[in-house]
Amino acid sequence: MLYSKLFGKTIREEPKGAKMTNHKLLYKAGFIRELSSGRYLLTTLGWQVLNKIIKVIDKQMIEIGSQRVATPTLHPLKLWQATHRDEAFGESLMRVKDRKNSEFAIGATHEAVMVEFVKKFKPSFKELPIVIHQFSNKFRDEIRARGGLIRLKEFLMKDAYSFAADEKEFMKTYEDQYNAYLKIAEKLKIKVVPVQADAGALGGDYCHEFMVLNSEGEDSFVVCKQCDYAANIEKAQGILSGQNLSEKELPLEKIKAKRGLNMDQMADFYKVPLWRLLKTVIFMVKEKPIAVLIRGDIEVNEIKLANILKTSNFRIPEPEELKKIKTVRGFVSPIGLKVDLFLVDQSVLTVKNLITGANELNQDYKNFNYPRDLKTAEVVDVAVVGQMFTCPKCKKGKLDSKRAIEFGHIFKYDHFYTKALGGKFINENGKENLLWMGAFGIGIERTMGIVVEENHDDKGIIWPESVAPFKAHLISLDKDNKKADDLYQKLEKEGIDVLYDDRDDVSAGVKFADADLIGIPYRLVVSKKTNNKIELKERLKDKTELLDLKDLIKKLK
Amino acid sequence: MLYSKLFGKTIREEPKGAKMTNHKLLYKAGFIRELSSGRYLLTTLGWQVLNKIIKVIDKQMIEIGSQRVATPTLHPLKLWQATHRDEAFGESLMRVKDRKNSEFAIGATHEAVMVEFVKKFKPSFKELPIVIHQFSNKFRDEIRARGGLIRLKEFLMKDAYSFAADEKEFMKTYEDQYNAYLKIAEKLKIKVVPVQADAGALGGDYCHEFMVLNSEGEDSFVVCKQCDYAANIEKAQGILSGQNLSEKELPLEKIKAKRGLNMDQMADFYKVPLWRLLKTVIFMVKEKPIAVLIRGDIEVNEIKLANILKTSNFRIPEPEELKKIKTVRGFVSPIGLKVDLFLVDQSVLTVKNLITGANELNQDYKNFNYPRDLKTAEVVDVAVVGQMFTCPKCKKGKLDSKRAIEFGHIFKYDHFYTKALGGKFINENGKENLLWMGAFGIGIERTMGIVVEENHDDKGIIWPESVAPFKAHLISLDKDNKKADDLYQKLEKEGIDVLYDDRDDVSAGVKFADADLIGIPYRLVVSKKTNNKIELKERLKDKTELLDLKDLIKKLK
Repeated sequence: MLYSKLFGKTIREEPKGAKMTNHKLLYKAGFIRELSSGRYLLTTLGWQVLNKIIKVIDKQMIEIGSQRVATPTLHPLKLWQATHRDEAFGESLMRVKDRKNSEFAIGATHEAVMVEFVKKFKPSFKELPIVIHQFSNKFRDEIRARGGLIRLKEFLMKDAYSFAADEKEFMKTYEDQYNAYLKIAEKLKIKVVPVQADAGALGGDYCHEFMVLNSEGEDSFVVCKQCDYAANIEKAQGILSGQNLSEKELPLEKIKAKRGLNMDQMADFYKVPLWRLLKTVIFMVKEKPIAVLIRGDIEVNEIKLANILKTSNFRIPEPEELKKIKTVRGFVSPIGLKVDLFLVDQSVLTVKNLITGANELNQDYKNFNYPRDLKTAEVVDVAVVGQMFTCPKCKKGKLDSKRAIEFGHIFKYDHFYTKALGGKFINENGKENLLWMGAFGIGIERTMGIVVEENHDDKGIIWPESVAPFKAHLISLDKDNKKADDLYQKLEKEGIDVLYDDRDDVSAGVKFADADLIGIPYRLVVSKKTNNKIELKERLKDKTELLDLKDLIKKLK
Repeated sequence: MLYSKLFGKTIREEPKGAKMTNHKLLYKAGFIRELSSGRYLLTTLGWQVLNKIIKVIDKQMIEIGSQRVATPTLHPLKLWQATHRDEAFGESLMRVKDRKNSEFAIGATHEAVMVEFVKKFKPSFKELPIVIHQFSNKFRDEIRARGGLIRLKEFLMKDAYSFAADEKEFMKTYEDQYNAYLKIAEKLKIKVVPVQADAGALGGDYCHEFMVLNSEGEDSFVVCKQCDYAANIEKAQGILSGQNLSEKELPLEKIKAKRGLNMDQMADFYKVPLWRLLKTVIFMVKEKPIAVLIRGDIEVNEIKLANILKTSNFRIPEPEELKKIKTVRGFVSPIGLKVDLFLVDQSVLTVKNLITGANELNQDYKNFNYPRDLKTAEVVDVAVVGQMFTCPKCKKGKLDSKRAIEFGHIFKYDHFYTKALGGKFINENGKENLLWMGAFGIGIERTMGIVVEENHDDKGIIWPESVAPFKAHLISLDKDNKKADDLYQKLEKEGIDVLYDDRDDVSAGVKFADADLIGIPYRLVVSKKTNNKIELKERLKDKTELLDLKDLIKKLK
């Protein structure tokens, strides 16, 4: 490919408002442009990389026996309704009616469609497990796109689905995918940490995410400093030791407290650590108030809360609504509160004589003790687990929390979808049984973004060879390009993919800077100075070497 | 691939209501299933073929210098509105709003998006022509899906777009695509006839369709029996010779005519040929009546009419509306008719003393002569051209009309899109000029359907090697499959794609029938009888031959 003819060129400016490296570099190097928020155009360079990522992933899927298929983007909405996934996805699922008023979901994921697909062939036990995958566009109307290619509203996904006769057969397909994800990440030079995770709107209760550490990531996970425990912050559990459990329970005492409204101000006021305080958070759940009690130094994990409540349909109350339940912001207290349900996080049991508000401005209670002062409550785990927790697995190591990007996610659904949709197989006795099912996803554009996040330096991208848009980047420093023209043709004839910067109206400096920005693995330079040889520099290394054509071809093949 | 593990199996029943061969065979052979009307699931076999078609087409695009890109499916609706394509597509364009109430079109074609894409890089004349293509899903909410894969509501399309500095540069890209289409068709063993066509809702006024003869096709085109003239029936022109122009114009005469309402009944009544009659067709155009006069043996071409009227927003009137303009069905006459516009087809000029209705039941006029009896009219070409016409190109040959399926369509838009959307390049003087633009489409699933229509026999599909799902279909006739297992592994090791029918619970007859149905190019049989050799039969031929392994591998590689 001649750079002069390449569709999509480098540019020195960064895209407006870009924060993440992949966004800045892919834009500047001419791989991507945004059509509208979260919907990207991929140039020639962009498509080359995307296509190579598809090939790497497809190969690994084929190797574990998955078969590639294709399915429509518009799904009859009733397939989503059968498992209430339309409600679970809420506004992020786009819907459309056709001219006959039939309702369709614009595919956000394909579980129900795949169950329908498998049903059409009434599989026998002999054919199982069925593992199928596709690369298909997914549509998720996120509230906000972010981070260049990291969170899109429309993106290509490798989504695989497995169907098995029993749990054991299913778990083999799950492990195959798990291992394939590790191999794919390795080939793409992405360092991943598999963590236990929450399935969210997709359903099921066992799943793993493959996380990539990144300070700008939207996700967080915790790891144990001593064992291999790792879990998404949404799912992570942890052990809290008692703080002052030897203290005697003192009598409740109402006191005047002209303090600020937040926990930090409250701790300052009393000159105590945050854990000494009781935090009572009100949520309106389907328009009814509930209260969650938690230790002052710990946050409420809304995913855990949604799983306990079996709905994500809840919100923070308006001031008017607080008034109705007889309390006031900053001074909420369980004592005398008019709510439909009290949930008490386990952390509350680790402290005696907590300080809490008193449902009136500038009034607090000292010495709140659970369960002495609140009889009708459920003890639950709704804590955002952090560094003060101990590992739930080895029960020794301290937990550490990391920011990360999700690279992939694998799900075990059991019969969640197949029961609702009648996904069955014929067993050895000729009878119908429900299929065990799972799903396994990798976002392709996001993967491209992660590869850049993981492989770059100050000058630009450093593509791993497996997904580089071209193998070599050829630069001519002579006024006439004869030597380079000749080399370009020879390399192309050998089947070596070359991006040849044939411009005669820019300086050598610009050409070198563009080569570093675009990030092709091997840079080749020819000029009068190189004589009959070619200067080769790997993008990853500093040193250059002079090679003759034969050795160069050997090196690049 | 082991047949026992293949996802998607053969079946003996035809799909309900199937009329076209591709529909019946692809369903029975297990390549496709319908998810909902016009939206198909592709099995492993189906995807293999689709993917190979993509590769054949992609290769030809790359060879003519096109660069592959990718663009979103949801387009800001304003991009469609800029050229009024939203109106032109009407209900077949699906629309959706996101959570922020922004309006999107679900991509039915990508012209406007591609102009936006090119604009983002402000191309200079040096980069031109820019030719880019993608394989992307298209969504068209057709009134009716039909013919298996022939007319879908959602399908993959190869759509290429070219942008050039001037008409000459553009025409080179148009010709490149034209020739590439012929090559692609050849590789896919599809016989195509390029014909001049109408651009319809896509805009522009110069385009070619690549037609495949098929008695079940939705399209028709005419060809000259003597020269190379070929045009879609929507676009075709023709020359009509005079019928009785030497006759003297006789005076108009109103007569009683207790006859049937249609042209055939009218001709019977008068015992004259149809061409002797004048047909006056009323259309309501944006709710106003117009009349089209045409010879009794010729139909009105509504596409030509739409192009003349510059709108496709017209319809046949209700009886009430006929009453208002002072006429009655079956006896419509231009004489005394209250309409806003008279259009007279050229064919009317080939006859003297026509018979027409008189706008009253059972009353006709004899001896209508244009222009004597109708002063204020426009003479136009709105005829459906057929066998009574002479070729407009060689002016000698008779025209012939054929039913066909459209395989591909290429469009020259001039500045139709780039003017409305500001698609410009920087010329040699640093000034901005509008880009010349064209688009070039091939529907991929439809192509798969056409390949089957063109390559099958009574027993099943006969895949051309270029797009066959596997190279060879291996059948074992022994009770134990040892010999076949061994051969399968050896062939796989050689990189030969084999579908191995390893079933032990079906007869040889079933295996042979399935092999013929699925249509893989080479059938291999091993059994005790074949000794150390392998029986090979080409799907296209009747004879079998016995080969040893070495010769077989040589043959299949």
